[in-house]
Amino acid sequence: MRVLSGIQPTGRPHWGNFFGAIRQYIDLQDEHEGFYFIADLHALTTVRDPELLRSYVLDAALDLLALGLDPTKATMFVQSYVPEVSELNWLLLSNASMGLLERCTAFKEKKERGLAANAGLFTYPVLMTADILVYDSQIVPVGADQIQHIEVCRDLASSFNHAYGETFVLPKAKTLDHGAKVPGTDGQKMSKSYDNTLPLFGDVKKIRKQIMRITTDSRAMEDPKDPEDDHLFDLYRLFADQPSIDQMAAMYRRGGFGYGEVKKAVAEASEQYFAGAREKRSDLEKNLDYVHQTLRDGADRAREVAGEVLSRAQKACGVR
Amino acid sequence: MRVLSGIQPTGRPHWGNFFGAIRQYIDLQDEHEGFYFIADLHALTTVRDPELLRSYVLDAALDLLALGLDPTKATMFVQSYVPEVSELNWLLLSNASMGLLERCTAFKEKKERGLAANAGLFTYPVLMTADILVYDSQIVPVGADQIQHIEVCRDLASSFNHAYGETFVLPKAKTLDHGAKVPGTDGQKMSKSYDNTLPLFGDVKKIRKQIMRITTDSRAMEDPKDPEDDHLFDLYRLFADQPSIDQMAAMYRRGGFGYGEVKKAVAEASEQYFAGAREKRSDLEKNLDYVHQTLRDGADRAREVAGEVLSRAQKACGVR
Repeated sequence: MRVLSGIQPTGRPHWGNFFGAIRQYIDLQDEHEGFYFIADLHALTTVRDPELLRSYVLDAALDLLALGLDPTKATMFVQSYVPEVSELNWLLLSNASMGLLERCTAFKEKKERGLAANAGLFTYPVLMTADILVYDSQIVPVGADQIQHIEVCRDLASSFNHAYGETFVLPKAKTLDHGAKVPGTDGQKMSKSYDNTLPLFGDVKKIRKQIMRITTDSRAMEDPKDPEDDHLFDLYRLFADQPSIDQMAAMYRRGGFGYGEVKKAVAEASEQYFAGAREKRSDLEKNLDYVHQTLRDGADRAREVAGEVLSRAQKACGVR
Repeated sequence: MRVLSGIQPTGRPHWGNFFGAIRQYIDLQDEHEGFYFIADLHALTTVRDPELLRSYVLDAALDLLALGLDPTKATMFVQSYVPEVSELNWLLLSNASMGLLERCTAFKEKKERGLAANAGLFTYPVLMTADILVYDSQIVPVGADQIQHIEVCRDLASSFNHAYGETFVLPKAKTLDHGAKVPGTDGQKMSKSYDNTLPLFGDVKKIRKQIMRITTDSRAMEDPKDPEDDHLFDLYRLFADQPSIDQMAAMYRRGGFGYGEVKKAVAEASEQYFAGAREKRSDLEKNLDYVHQTLRDGADRAREVAGEVLSRAQKACGVR
């Protein structure tokens, strides 16, 4: 099965991104044919600084490779390197009703909040549809908040198939597992919009400082505590092995420890957990030619598939 | 100067199209570098029959060549053969405000008349902008009703240039001369929407019959008539040479003739006027390989220019 995932190159990934999405879709490369694209065309609707966008795109490639994306198994590429996506986008736009797009959440929310929207934001569900359909994608891993996009994609694909005959493969959404709780530095869910994130990569000392400043409650040290109801414990268990987790849980239940100790343990466990990726990333940074070549090879592979699908769509609607 | 003109492949051209537009923009090939594209991507928003669209596109190419477009002087190509247009379309969409598009006439009118619009119709001023900008076009010949499109194009180009630095050439509109009156079979302005058109090509006998049925007034034959106030005379003068026009005018002022005579003269003059084009078209129909090769050569030439401009735009906004 072909799995497609798009990565927004809009900043550095944090622990929440990793456990909630990145790790899960990278894992899919083992059983499926993974197509992973860095969505620079989508980022254009919000990132207005060309230098920043270029560095975000490169960072995203470095991050993915460092975190285990294997170019011998999966295809990684930059969205804009596949012109077929933009071409298919127009064929789909010509068949997309205004009503469908007006109902799409991201645009509706922005409009309701009185924010100026651009036509890129308004039509991006169509570009996303082109992204998916142009590779005959069968599975698209998404967060619960993105299921609507897959529905829009299936709607547009079905109505094109209905109007012009069977052309597109209808993809299925695979909802990502949000089982693992990843609290941020304030104890709430880790999210860029809460400004409470801890990055995967970056200066270790700085990250350690951020960890040491994680909000805690003011219960007395000696009180026994329920590990299941503590965000520091939630963080620790993301990184530690089972014996260490059991040991930490026992310490919580016993009481008589400071949160500082737990924070230190979180810092150490997370550093160790990401040590390999961190090392790999710093090697890749010294070998950017390899990274660029990987992206070019990925684009070539992606264009092979995209060319076939686009040609099918063009013939179906009569522009070939 | 580079002149760009887009031809909608949505049916057979009529006398009004010819005198009001086609002849004028073909004439520009002598003094300028003409880029003439057949707008199949725009036609997609309204033509839903792939066979029909394919035949319209071929017809448009045949028409243009038959009417004098010279591939050694001008570049003729099909819009969708230049992927750079679709690629630039997205870069522009990401920078186009919703308000600008909502104010565009074609969409507004359709919405006000309560008709369902698709996203292609809504965003087509952006695609049209991409069409113009991607060739560094300097002059765009347009009818008075299309001047808004050039304004939208200049708006979008300016705001892109403002955001990302000088990237696009700002085109100028060249308003087509609507001096020549081309009345239809009912005496009103010849227009597809009035269903009163006379085609350039097609069965001569059938066209002659249509001419013989042109509406006339019921003044007595012997009355003198003002040639300046008669639609048959307006038609005649499109095709006849000056001495014949003067002679016909004298006959009008004198009176004592039947409109049937004038209709016959219109039929003969128009047949003669288009005889060369008609012959050329029928030769071309027997030599479709040449026509297809001309379109391919045109697309190659167009892509050379488009590739450079797209690359400039991509670098400017950071997707390269």
